[in-house]
Amino acid sequence: MGERRYAVIGAGHGGKAMAADLAAKGFSVNLYNRTSEHITEIVLRREIELEFEDGTVHDCRLDVVTSDISEAIDDADVIMVVLPASAHRDVARLCATRLRSGQIVVLNPGRTGGALEFRRILNQMGCAGDVIVAETATFILASRSTGPAQAHIFRRKNAVPLAALPAIHTNQVLELVHDALPQFIPAVNVLHTSLDNMGAIFHPALTLLNAGWIERTMGDFEFYVDGVTHSTARVLEVLDRERVTVASALGVRARPALNWLKDAYSAEGETLYEAMQANPGYQGIKAPRTLRHRYLFEDVPFSLVPLASLGAQFGVETWATEAMIRLACVVHGTNYFARGRNTEDMGLKGLRVSEVKQYVQVGEIEPIYDSADVE
Amino acid sequence: MGERRYAVIGAGHGGKAMAADLAAKGFSVNLYNRTSEHITEIVLRREIELEFEDGTVHDCRLDVVTSDISEAIDDADVIMVVLPASAHRDVARLCATRLRSGQIVVLNPGRTGGALEFRRILNQMGCAGDVIVAETATFILASRSTGPAQAHIFRRKNAVPLAALPAIHTNQVLELVHDALPQFIPAVNVLHTSLDNMGAIFHPALTLLNAGWIERTMGDFEFYVDGVTHSTARVLEVLDRERVTVASALGVRARPALNWLKDAYSAEGETLYEAMQANPGYQGIKAPRTLRHRYLFEDVPFSLVPLASLGAQFGVETWATEAMIRLACVVHGTNYFARGRNTEDMGLKGLRVSEVKQYVQVGEIEPIYDSADVE
Repeated sequence: MGERRYAVIGAGHGGKAMAADLAAKGFSVNLYNRTSEHITEIVLRREIELEFEDGTVHDCRLDVVTSDISEAIDDADVIMVVLPASAHRDVARLCATRLRSGQIVVLNPGRTGGALEFRRILNQMGCAGDVIVAETATFILASRSTGPAQAHIFRRKNAVPLAALPAIHTNQVLELVHDALPQFIPAVNVLHTSLDNMGAIFHPALTLLNAGWIERTMGDFEFYVDGVTHSTARVLEVLDRERVTVASALGVRARPALNWLKDAYSAEGETLYEAMQANPGYQGIKAPRTLRHRYLFEDVPFSLVPLASLGAQFGVETWATEAMIRLACVVHGTNYFARGRNTEDMGLKGLRVSEVKQYVQVGEIEPIYDSADVE
Repeated sequence: MGERRYAVIGAGHGGKAMAADLAAKGFSVNLYNRTSEHITEIVLRREIELEFEDGTVHDCRLDVVTSDISEAIDDADVIMVVLPASAHRDVARLCATRLRSGQIVVLNPGRTGGALEFRRILNQMGCAGDVIVAETATFILASRSTGPAQAHIFRRKNAVPLAALPAIHTNQVLELVHDALPQFIPAVNVLHTSLDNMGAIFHPALTLLNAGWIERTMGDFEFYVDGVTHSTARVLEVLDRERVTVASALGVRARPALNWLKDAYSAEGETLYEAMQANPGYQGIKAPRTLRHRYLFEDVPFSLVPLASLGAQFGVETWATEAMIRLACVVHGTNYFARGRNTEDMGLKGLRVSEVKQYVQVGEIEPIYDSADVE
């Protein structure tokens, strides 16, 4: 171990924990954060004090702590992007001309269409190297930044699906990172990681349907317990059905939220309401303190908008999803349809389902001729 | 006084109070309720015990208390419909063949398009008589049913706009009811009473944006105080702007909610949030106890749907209004777009603005020729 060098992009709740954890495992780690003020203390100490799940604390030594993207990524084998999806575009533009063959970029997670959009920006900006872009379905750790140079890992998730774009490279990525992050398992392709995005279903709807309560009490209630009622859960079910239907139009059998709750938390029920109320893992999680929260400004443009855009392109009505997006637009006074990730951003505009599958699976899109073309 | 005979249709919170109040003023009153079980006690006593604003209590003797519509309306001069808008269609169908010339029907209130839809049903069912249909902008009393044969009037509203369809009959209606209900003032026409529907703006949005809180606590918070936050009020502002814009497309200068709060409650502010928080009249009003409440099942199909439908016909995008309707559809598992009142139900489908104005003003639609038609 230790010969592989990681770059972790983003020193927030997730990035600090992942960087420190990788360092604790003996890997060389460069930590990057765009705003240097946020990492002053880590720059000074070059260490992060990491509290593990069992309560033990380690000082984890980092190789490089920087706000200079070249310093962070030039010598890295694997670049772990641990940022809200709203930052993926900027990171892609920042890295595009610097990446070189053999480097691997992993979006932790990609939300919906992250790897697709990242790849498209690299292509557009003429990224010369043979770079692999991958995304995970969810962030691998439950962690929190507990001080300027402190982080705490509460829990490690098991079996986090990861897919490379194209999928023929997925195993290569998994083999490379296996010693560091053995929890990653292969997803069929990035459509699966992107469409099994449960945050898309839970986050914006529960935030908006509890908007008054959140703002009046600064989120002083249990988000997934108090905030999930028969009616709010019914809205989640309809959104979930739309997501699964969009996936199915793309030939992807997405996991319904009810199944996911059972698999991830052993939480069962006839309805989402029952299953969510039966999930002890949801207890104690407070609501967001404000509506200016990533549950809206990340999950609406980078989870719901791509779902609606895929639905529009592939003939699936996403009626409730669009209503949620509109409501978020009104609440935030912005146009998330315009700012979010659509099929054009994902490089899928104009493609047929067969071409999309080809693209995510092997990377090349073979020209398909209509019978009229080949006569 | 007393020679005029009223029929009050509906023995709920509003109907009982209005019937008793009219009786107390010396008028003959017939009270009708479709479900006879709800009026058993009043049938037995033929009186309603009415508590007035000043705390005094009167036994108010009714002429007829019945579940037979003929018994209720045949000898009535004025028929006061005091029912949720969802019942207007049924009442129109029930009365259509029984109404006779000279009778006046007043919807208290019509919500959006009540008189228009009522009139259309009378016409479709071949109502032979020369009947006047009118609507008010809001219910004239703040009242509550306090027992099987008891009612309580808390407050009488001042200056409640009323319009007949067509408007040339408005003064005739006002003159006839003036001795009984002097608070009525003339509205320009039913477009004004229908488009100055503030419930359309406040009720569904605040209910949906506080859905989790309502359902979790059975409405145990102050609806217009706690439930109105910066973000929920911003949604109200956008909905209000859409309503005012739809009105403006019809040549109607609707009253913005901010002005209405100032006029009705002397509540002022730069924003709806400020004005609503500054309104002492809103204090103490609890949220609905459930989402199966008229704030959704009445105000969505009979306030928001007609607004959206008018917008669609007259070229006004009602983006946020439609998002609200969709959300209510999902929460209630129904299609309010289909069940609600659209421009066809209102008898306006295919009409131009000038024709609509003609229709609501004088009743006849004069054929308008395009230059191409007349050459």
